[in-house]
Amino acid sequence: MRVGMLTSGGDCQSLNATMRGVAKTLYNLLHDDVEIIGFIEGYKGLIYSDYKIMKPKDFSGILTEGGTILGTSRQPFKLMRTPDANGLDKVKAMKDNYKRLGLDCLVVLGGNGSQKTSNLLREEGLNVIGLPKTIDNDLWGTDVTFGFQSAINLATQTIDCIHTTAASHGRVFIVEIMGHKVGWLTLHAGIAGGADIILLPEIPYDINKVADALKKREKEGKRFSIIAVAEGAISKEQAAMSKKEYKKYVEERPYPSVAYEVGDQVKKLTGQEVRVAVPGHMQRGGEPCPYDRVLSTRLGAAAGKMIVKGEFGYLVGMKNNEITKVPLEDVAGKLKMVSPDSSMVKEAKLLGISFGD
Amino acid sequence: MRVGMLTSGGDCQSLNATMRGVAKTLYNLLHDDVEIIGFIEGYKGLIYSDYKIMKPKDFSGILTEGGTILGTSRQPFKLMRTPDANGLDKVKAMKDNYKRLGLDCLVVLGGNGSQKTSNLLREEGLNVIGLPKTIDNDLWGTDVTFGFQSAINLATQTIDCIHTTAASHGRVFIVEIMGHKVGWLTLHAGIAGGADIILLPEIPYDINKVADALKKREKEGKRFSIIAVAEGAISKEQAAMSKKEYKKYVEERPYPSVAYEVGDQVKKLTGQEVRVAVPGHMQRGGEPCPYDRVLSTRLGAAAGKMIVKGEFGYLVGMKNNEITKVPLEDVAGKLKMVSPDSSMVKEAKLLGISFGD
Amino acid sequence: MRVGMLTSGGDCQSLNATMRGVAKTLYNLLHDDVEIIGFIEGYKGLIYSDYKIMKPKDFSGILTEGGTILGTSRQPFKLMRTPDANGLDKVKAMKDNYKRLGLDCLVVLGGNGSQKTSNLLREEGLNVIGLPKTIDNDLWGTDVTFGFQSAINLATQTIDCIHTTAASHGRVFIVEIMGHKVGWLTLHAGIAGGADIILLPEIPYDINKVADALKKREKEGKRFSIIAVAEGAISKEQAAMSKKEYKKYVEERPYPSVAYEVGDQVKKLTGQEVRVAVPGHMQRGGEPCPYDRVLSTRLGAAAGKMIVKGEFGYLVGMKNNEITKVPLEDVAGKLKMVSPDSSMVKEAKLLGISFGD
Amino acid sequence: MRVGMLTSGGDCQSLNATMRGVAKTLYNLLHDDVEIIGFIEGYKGLIYSDYKIMKPKDFSGILTEGGTILGTSRQPFKLMRTPDANGLDKVKAMKDNYKRLGLDCLVVLGGNGSQKTSNLLREEGLNVIGLPKTIDNDLWGTDVTFGFQSAINLATQTIDCIHTTAASHGRVFIVEIMGHKVGWLTLHAGIAGGADIILLPEIPYDINKVADALKKREKEGKRFSIIAVAEGAISKEQAAMSKKEYKKYVEERPYPSVAYEVGDQVKKLTGQEVRVAVPGHMQRGGEPCPYDRVLSTRLGAAAGKMIVKGEFGYLVGMKNNEITKVPLEDVAGKLKMVSPDSSMVKEAKLLGISFGD
Repeated sequence: MRVGMLTSGGDCQSLNATMRGVAKTLYNLLHDDVEIIGFIEGYKGLIYSDYKIMKPKDFSGILTEGGTILGTSRQPFKLMRTPDANGLDKVKAMKDNYKRLGLDCLVVLGGNGSQKTSNLLREEGLNVIGLPKTIDNDLWGTDVTFGFQSAINLATQTIDCIHTTAASHGRVFIVEIMGHKVGWLTLHAGIAGGADIILLPEIPYDINKVADALKKREKEGKRFSIIAVAEGAISKEQAAMSKKEYKKYVEERPYPSVAYEVGDQVKKLTGQEVRVAVPGHMQRGGEPCPYDRVLSTRLGAAAGKMIVKGEFGYLVGMKNNEITKVPLEDVAGKLKMVSPDSSMVKEAKLLGISFGD
Repeated sequence: MRVGMLTSGGDCQSLNATMRGVAKTLYNLLHDDVEIIGFIEGYKGLIYSDYKIMKPKDFSGILTEGGTILGTSRQPFKLMRTPDANGLDKVKAMKDNYKRLGLDCLVVLGGNGSQKTSNLLREEGLNVIGLPKTIDNDLWGTDVTFGFQSAINLATQTIDCIHTTAASHGRVFIVEIMGHKVGWLTLHAGIAGGADIILLPEIPYDINKVADALKKREKEGKRFSIIAVAEGAISKEQAAMSKKEYKKYVEERPYPSVAYEVGDQVKKLTGQEVRVAVPGHMQRGGEPCPYDRVLSTRLGAAAGKMIVKGEFGYLVGMKNNEITKVPLEDVAGKLKMVSPDSSMVKEAKLLGISFGD
Repeated sequence: MRVGMLTSGGDCQSLNATMRGVAKTLYNLLHDDVEIIGFIEGYKGLIYSDYKIMKPKDFSGILTEGGTILGTSRQPFKLMRTPDANGLDKVKAMKDNYKRLGLDCLVVLGGNGSQKTSNLLREEGLNVIGLPKTIDNDLWGTDVTFGFQSAINLATQTIDCIHTTAASHGRVFIVEIMGHKVGWLTLHAGIAGGADIILLPEIPYDINKVADALKKREKEGKRFSIIAVAEGAISKEQAAMSKKEYKKYVEERPYPSVAYEVGDQVKKLTGQEVRVAVPGHMQRGGEPCPYDRVLSTRLGAAAGKMIVKGEFGYLVGMKNNEITKVPLEDVAGKLKMVSPDSSMVKEAKLLGISFGD
Repeated sequence: MRVGMLTSGGDCQSLNATMRGVAKTLYNLLHDDVEIIGFIEGYKGLIYSDYKIMKPKDFSGILTEGGTILGTSRQPFKLMRTPDANGLDKVKAMKDNYKRLGLDCLVVLGGNGSQKTSNLLREEGLNVIGLPKTIDNDLWGTDVTFGFQSAINLATQTIDCIHTTAASHGRVFIVEIMGHKVGWLTLHAGIAGGADIILLPEIPYDINKVADALKKREKEGKRFSIIAVAEGAISKEQAAMSKKEYKKYVEERPYPSVAYEVGDQVKKLTGQEVRVAVPGHMQRGGEPCPYDRVLSTRLGAAAGKMIVKGEFGYLVGMKNNEITKVPLEDVAGKLKMVSPDSSMVKEAKLLGISFGD
C-alpha cells in the first residue's frame, strides 16, 4: 500500500504529531506492507512531483516538534484550475503524479482552503482523507482543530505577561491576536488572559463603546485595562463597507494592523496612555501543547485505521470528544464562526467583559 | 444576598479562577446587593465558623494563581455523621452556621468526596451548588473537571524532559503519574508524552507482558522505552486480591510506590537499566493553563447566573462543550473511570502503545 | 529602625523578589525592631506622601510574582528640580517626608534615571541604597541587572516560536526586541534564538549589507532568515543625523517602529516575503526566571545587611558573581552599552551572524 | 582539517547547542576545508570506531534540542586502562582510530570523569579540547557549565508547583534535587524556589536541627514548609562513616533515596504531615534555556577558533563572563564544591534559610 501525505497552507503546531499518528498506526497495522510518500511544501510537491519516500524513523521523535517536516506552502484554491506560468494544468498534474506513484490514497493536513482542494481531488476520483489543521479553529465539521489550543496558550501567555506590567503602570494595553477572519483564538485567549475588552470579527465594535468601557473602568478605580483584539476585528462602520471599499480603506490607513488603529482611537477618546503588542506569527510556532498532541494522535490513529479499511472522502474531526467523519463535500467552502449568541460569549458578558457592541 | 463559598479536598489548579468566575458574575449582576463569605480550609471553616467576608478586590488578579486563596482540607464524608473530638455534631454545626450567617446558598468547589458532603447538605435543606474540582477527572456528570488539563501539562512535561535523556542514554524510564484510583491523567499524559507503555488502574497489567513489550522494542533497535504508570495502577494479581489483602500487600512491599515496584520487576525480567521519576504533588500545583481558565470562567459564570436565578442542588459541569446541570444526588458516590473499551484506549493501541494487558 | 522602599521607572520582572530579599533579611536580623514603609508608585509616593506600612506577610509569596506590589511610575530626573503644577518643590517634599516619617534610609529599586534621582537624594543628605532594576541591563556598575534574564527568556521564546513557522514557510521574519537605547537584550536573545542577523543601537546597520546577508542565505539554499532588531537600532544614515533631525525623522516615518521600517526596506531590496512581530511589553512581564530570583535574593540580602550595618550611598550590584557596592555618584548618568569589539559580539560573528555592519 | 567530536557521560541540556557552536564556527572559518567526525555514544564510539561523517545540515536546527544527536554513554575513567571483555586495549584503540581517521583534534563534551579521560588522551599525544558539560556544575576551572541553568529552571519549577499545593494544604514537602555529589543545583533551585530548608552534601545536616526549623515555622503560624534536599545530601552521622560503611548503610536502608529517609525522620520528629517528590532525570532533559544556549554558543565559538589556531590541551570555560582556557591537567580529578562559607550560602542564611547545620 502506498500512502501520500502533505501539509498545506499556513503552518501550525501539531502538524508533525498528526503525521506521526497516521504513520505509526499504518506501520503498526501493516508493517512492511505500507510505504508513505511525503510531498514537499504541500500541493506544490504533488503538482511538481517533489517528494520523499518516508521511513519509520522519519516519524520518530517528532511528536513535540513545531512546524512540519514536509514544509508547506499556500496554493490558493481559486487558482487551482488556472494553468501555471509554464502552462501546466495543475489538477491534471496532481492526478498524474498520484497515479504514476501508485498511490492508494492521499492524506491532506490543511485548513479551509486546503480542504477545498482536497475535495476537488476527491471529485476528480482520488482517495483523499483530510485532517483539520489550523490555529484559527474555523474549519467546519469538527469541534476543534489541532494547533488551536497551542496558539491559545501562546496568545494567553502574551496577555499574562502584559498583565503584570499593565497593573504596575496603570495603562491601556492592546494585544493583537491572530485568527484570520474569525474570533475563536481571541475569544479563548481573551477569556483565559482576563482581558477586559474583546473585539472579534463576528461582533463589529463601536469604538465609542470601547472607549466608554475604558472610562468606566478608570472611574471604578481600576488602574489598567487590557483589550484583546482579533487581527480580523472590524468596526461597525467597516462592517458596513463593501468588500472593495474595505480593502481600499485598509490599504490607505496609516497603520500596519488593526491594533494600532484601535490604539490611536481610544487614546484620542479617553486620554489614557496606550501601548500595543503584536506577537504575530509566534502564535503559530513552537511545540504543540499536550492537548493538541492527544488530539493529533487520536485523529492520526483514526485516519490510519480508515486508510486500512478503505474509507475515503472524509475529513476526520472531533465531535463531542469522539472521532467523527465528515464528507469533504460538506466541509469545503464553509467557515465556522463564533456566534454572537453562543453561550461562551454570553458567559463572558456575564462576567462583565465588553465586546464593544 | 449572601453567598457562602468553600474549596474542599485535595487542591488543584484553577480553584481561584473558578471562584473569580462566580464572584465577578455575582458582582456584575447584583453589584452591592451581594456579599460573599469565604470559609477557611473547606468544610472545616463551615463547621467551626472560620470565615472571611470577601471583597471584590479579593477576587482580582487571582485568575492565574495556583492553590486556593481560601485554603483547603480533607474532611472525609464517612466521618461527617460522626461527632468530632469535642462531641460536636458537624452536620448540625454546618446547618446552624449557614443559617446564622444568613446564607442564601453555598458554593462548593470539590471532587468526589466533597460533593458527597455537598449532597448531604442539600438533603439537609441547604441551597448548594457544586463545581467540579480535581486533577483526577473522575467526577461523574461532567466531561472534564478543572485542574485536569493543567495536571496533564505538567505530567507531560515531565515525560518530555525524560524523553531526551532516555533517548541519549538508552534506558527504561518509569514515570509515576497522579490520578488517585483512576487513569485519566496517565492516559492523557502518556499519549501526549509519547509513552511506549501505559499502566492504568482500570486495565490491570501483566508484568510479563510489560517486560515483553520492552524486549520487543529492544529487539527492534529502539534504544529506550518510557512507561507511564498511574499511581493507582495494579497488576492482575493485585486486582484479584481482596481490599484487605491488597492494603496489607501495599504496606508490606519494600517500595514507597508502584513505580519503584514495576521498576524492580522489569529490571529483573529484562536486564535493562531502569530509572524512576515520581514528580508527585508538583502535578497539582502551579498556575492553571489557559484551557482550565476558560473552563473555570465558564463554569463560574454559569454558577453565578444559577445563584441569581435560584437554581440549586446541581453540580455545574461541561457536556459536549456546553454547560450542564446535573442533580447532586446523581453525582454523589459515583466514580468516572477510563473504560478499557473506550475509543481513546483503542486509538492508543492502534499506534502500538502497550497497556500491559 | 524605619526603612523606606520604592520601585521606580518602567517595571520589570523580579522587583517583588528583590523587595522580599531585603525585607526577609531585615526581619530575620532585626525582628520587631524594623518597620518598612512602602511608597506607592515610585518617587510619586515619596513626593506626595502616599505610602503603606508593610507587614511581613506583605512580602510572603511574592518571590515569583511579576510586576511590583508597590506600583511604579516614571518621574523624569530632569524634572525633579522643577516645581510641580501646584508649585510644590519635589526634592524638598521628598526630604521632608523622609524626615517626618522618621526614616533611617531609603531603598530605591530603579534603573538609570531612577538612580540619578537616588544620587540626588544622597547629595541632599538622605541615606540611600540603590538596587539595579531593568530588562535593558544598561546600568553602570553591575554585570547584570534583575529583569534582564527573564526578558531574554521571553524574547528568545518569541524567536523560537517564529523559527518553526519560518522554517516551514521559507520567509524572512523580523522580531523587534526591547532594550531602550542599548542592545544587550537583543544580543542575548538573538544568539539564544539562533537569529541570522542582529541589529543593535551600538552597531549602526547598513541596510544593503542586511539585504546582502539575506540574499547570501537564500543562495546557499537556506529557506528562511530571522532578524532580531533592537527597538533602538539605527542605520548608519540615522546615526549620522543630529538628535533633532533623528527625532523629526522618526515622527514622520510611516512606521510605528523600527522593525516595520527594516521590514519594508529588505522586502524591496531582496524581493523576499517578510513578516514582522513586535511582542512589546510582554517582554517585561510575567514571573521572574530562577536566575533572576537568585540574583534578586542575593542583592536583597546584601542590601538588608548593609542597612543593618549603616552602609549607605551605594548601588548594590553583582561583579564576577559576587556582590559589589558601587558609590551612587559613580553610577548616576552613565550608560552601560554593548561594545562592538566585545568578545561576545566577536564570538557571534565567528558563527556567521551578521550585524549589518 | 578533520575534527572528531563526542559527548560523554550523563547527558544534559545544551549538548547540541554546544556542538552547533563549534561546527558553525568551523564551517564559517574553514568552509569546505573542514570535516567533522561524530563518534557515537561517547568514548565507546572512539574505542570501537563507531562514527558518522557529519554534514553542515546535521548541526542545523539543533540549538534548542535536548539530549545529544551523537548519543552518550558512561565509560568510567578508572576502567580506561583495563582491557575490555575481548582483551582490547581501549586507550590504544582510541589512539589508533584517531590516527587512522586522520584527525587533527578531538573535541570532548563531558563532565568530571570524561575530562579525566580527555586529559589521558592528551598525555598520550592527541590534540584534545574539552567543553564543560554537566547539570552538576562541579567542574573545576569554569564558573559555570552548560546544562546547569536549564536544570535549575526545571528543579525550581518543581518547587514552584509544590509551593501552591503546600500553601493550600499546610504540609511539609521534600523535593529531591539532582547534583550528584555536590550541592550547586540544590542551592540555586532552593533559593530560587523559596525553600525554607536546604540540605547539601557539603553541609552535613543534623536531623534534629531540621526538625527544629520545621517546628519553629509551625510555631510562627506558617502553615507549610519546603525542604530542598540534594540527592547527595548526608547527615552528620553519615558524614562520619567510612566510605565502605556509608555504602553498606545506603544499601540496607529501606528507602530508594535520601528524600524518603529525611521525610520519615522529620515526620517522626515533628508529627507534621510530609510528602516527597523525586522529579529525577527530568531535571537533565528538555530543551536548553536561553542562558545555556548563549553560554554554549560562546564556548563553541571559542573552541572552534582555538581549533583553527591549533591551541589544544585545554578545557574551554567561562570565568567572570569571559572565555577562559584551562589546561586539562589542571582540571582532571578535581571537584568544584559549594563552600559552606561562600557568600551565597551566607546570603541565604541572612534571609533565614536553614541548612540544618
